[in-house]
Amino acid sequence: MENPRPAARVAGRKEDVWSIVNSAAASSPKQPIVNMGQGFFGYAPPQFIVDAAIDALKTVECNQYSPTRGRPRLKKALAGAYSEWLGKPINPDTEVTVTTGANEGILSAFMAFIEPGDEVIVFEPFFDQYLSNIEMPGGKVVYVPLHPPKNGATQTTSSSEWTLDIKELEAAITPKTKMIVLNTPHNPIGKIFSKEELTSIGDLCVKSNIIILSDEVYDTLYYTPFTRIATLSPEYARLTLTVGSAGKSFYVTGWRVGWLIGPQHLIDYVAAAHTRICYTTVSPLQEAIAVGFEQAPHNGFWPESRKSLKSKMDRLNSVWSELDLPFTDPEGGYFVLVNMAKVKIPEGYDFPPHVASRPRDFKLCWFLIQEIGVAAIPPSEFCTDENAGLVQDYLRFAVCKEDSVLESAKERLRGLKKFIE
Amino acid sequence: MENPRPAARVAGRKEDVWSIVNSAAASSPKQPIVNMGQGFFGYAPPQFIVDAAIDALKTVECNQYSPTRGRPRLKKALAGAYSEWLGKPINPDTEVTVTTGANEGILSAFMAFIEPGDEVIVFEPFFDQYLSNIEMPGGKVVYVPLHPPKNGATQTTSSSEWTLDIKELEAAITPKTKMIVLNTPHNPIGKIFSKEELTSIGDLCVKSNIIILSDEVYDTLYYTPFTRIATLSPEYARLTLTVGSAGKSFYVTGWRVGWLIGPQHLIDYVAAAHTRICYTTVSPLQEAIAVGFEQAPHNGFWPESRKSLKSKMDRLNSVWSELDLPFTDPEGGYFVLVNMAKVKIPEGYDFPPHVASRPRDFKLCWFLIQEIGVAAIPPSEFCTDENAGLVQDYLRFAVCKEDSVLESAKERLRGLKKFIE
Repeated sequence: MENPRPAARVAGRKEDVWSIVNSAAASSPKQPIVNMGQGFFGYAPPQFIVDAAIDALKTVECNQYSPTRGRPRLKKALAGAYSEWLGKPINPDTEVTVTTGANEGILSAFMAFIEPGDEVIVFEPFFDQYLSNIEMPGGKVVYVPLHPPKNGATQTTSSSEWTLDIKELEAAITPKTKMIVLNTPHNPIGKIFSKEELTSIGDLCVKSNIIILSDEVYDTLYYTPFTRIATLSPEYARLTLTVGSAGKSFYVTGWRVGWLIGPQHLIDYVAAAHTRICYTTVSPLQEAIAVGFEQAPHNGFWPESRKSLKSKMDRLNSVWSELDLPFTDPEGGYFVLVNMAKVKIPEGYDFPPHVASRPRDFKLCWFLIQEIGVAAIPPSEFCTDENAGLVQDYLRFAVCKEDSVLESAKERLRGLKKFIE
Repeated sequence: MENPRPAARVAGRKEDVWSIVNSAAASSPKQPIVNMGQGFFGYAPPQFIVDAAIDALKTVECNQYSPTRGRPRLKKALAGAYSEWLGKPINPDTEVTVTTGANEGILSAFMAFIEPGDEVIVFEPFFDQYLSNIEMPGGKVVYVPLHPPKNGATQTTSSSEWTLDIKELEAAITPKTKMIVLNTPHNPIGKIFSKEELTSIGDLCVKSNIIILSDEVYDTLYYTPFTRIATLSPEYARLTLTVGSAGKSFYVTGWRVGWLIGPQHLIDYVAAAHTRICYTTVSPLQEAIAVGFEQAPHNGFWPESRKSLKSKMDRLNSVWSELDLPFTDPEGGYFVLVNMAKVKIPEGYDFPPHVASRPRDFKLCWFLIQEIGVAAIPPSEFCTDENAGLVQDYLRFAVCKEDSVLESAKERLRGLKKFIE
């Protein structure tokens, strides 16, 4: 008898960018590859978080089920931090819900509000998990591009020069638009949306009663002033779910603790969806993150982590200046987009078919891994086919790595010189 | 403007059993309540697991993203254990996927195979999360009752005397039946399905090509011989996804590490769904569970945990004999169903409306909390309204508590004597 058929939502599995990068890395002659692809931290989390996790593991009840909305201590610590960050008191019991990473938190938000056929607006380039998370409850993704700086191929520019055309956003809104996903600081661009941009977006959302899912997982890593949309007006706040992540904030991407903050009329349903998806979130690590939020305002961790990541960013980026390759100087986060239009891939260079058929950034990615021994991510993976051209000269590098790794990456990247005209 | 409307899948939120029990506990004069409701452990996990988690927290890469199918060390350890338990070699890379608790693993299985309108057969009483997990991808739940022992109100019986009418199961199968959920050892009954029962079920599934989701999360806690359906025939194994849980196996319900084992043509799609739901599972605790599976066969933990839980079970159950209340003696797991038909609730006893409107077991639950100070779970919550009557004289008690807690529960339960005729 035939094997049971999978559901459509999982049946179409094209090779994803991570598999392509990993298989390229495995086949490269330049071993070991310096991996600047995925955004995991190459060093230990702060000791006060690790100590708190160890304490929690030694406490009987911290190893058992937590309440579905999160441990009281973490909800209280989050409410404390966000009361300050959002500029109004946040109720830990009604306006906070802890989720299994920001990823499952975002899925919970879509599961809470999207009915089949509802539309969700996403900016390009986008974090790829948004799409499957929107499609799971039957939602339709509607794309609006962020436009790269006109002179991005010749000059280093600020990430603020990637721009939203508000008319394009307005045109994308239909009576079926239920939610919009905002990501600031933005992955992969590093853009922090300005007050003016947020106001234009917020006004459109208020006009059409659109829920704003503000993915702010890089919110502690900003290098220019950072504004949260929910602070700009109570009318925006009424519609905004703010997403945060312990993984990004405390260098623990493998801990799977995230949260959503918002008004009770939104959070109640996110929490209900989360309960049905994961039931509850890892207890001892929730407790550790609670301690993290309690201590970080007093032990200097927030400014220290900003300083550390900004220094890593500048450390890596000096090599692009050496090579005369323009990059997008990020306002936040730990990714940098580098424009490789000037890199000439030798004519007739042999790409495997699954790379040859993709936009130029996939070829650049393959070429760097094979010839230079450095892995980066092709950002057209985060665009529709239609808009892949906008980013096909760029590669995304993650700088959340040991300084020695960054130096060894730079040493290798200097080898690009002979391919730059 | 009106608040945005939630999706239907989260909009209908009747008060769940946990909230009812908790609010009853809060309002009881018998403080503190002895909580034998939810199945969390009241004592520390084994030291070798805690030590392994602490080691992992101190290892840089154990705090970062794991591969979506699980950490190589855990997949290998699971494949080792299940190769023995399933009596055939299990490939760690293709036949294992680690999930965020068994709960999210079960959701991933439904997300992988259920299209809107597909039917899934579930036995009553059922674990309540099955229902929302089936409904999330648009599946329809079809119920088949397990029948209580005829003399359950007057005599203590084995959980094996709760029986499946195979004709009822056969009649429930339609061309739309895509999956069946089996739970053995069973929550709340404690039943271990016999080889004969499993063979009848397996034959029906093979005949109609129905996927068997075998929820075996209590699989290390059996007090009579335990058979896994996937071991009974290669034809059954071809259709079977076996579910396991670190939470139940190592006393860490708050760690959220589970797994599914099965043939590649099923596991591939479960893994794809899991990637879209949670992306990946908590890293340091995966590593600790890997160590658990490496060490448990050598340090005597498996037989020791069986002995410990069985001794707790017998310790509590002696009080029912004192009270002359019949119970269902469980073959596995850590729950016991006690028949309270003999308990006479005083006439005119005052129940709040949300309890008064529910079956007798909810009233018994409320009465015990208020008058005796012991919380248990009313199992009609795990049945359809139609079949609630089957279990309305029973309450479910969890015995995974300190011996001193069990003794204090018993002391309180002796107070029931005056209400028993």
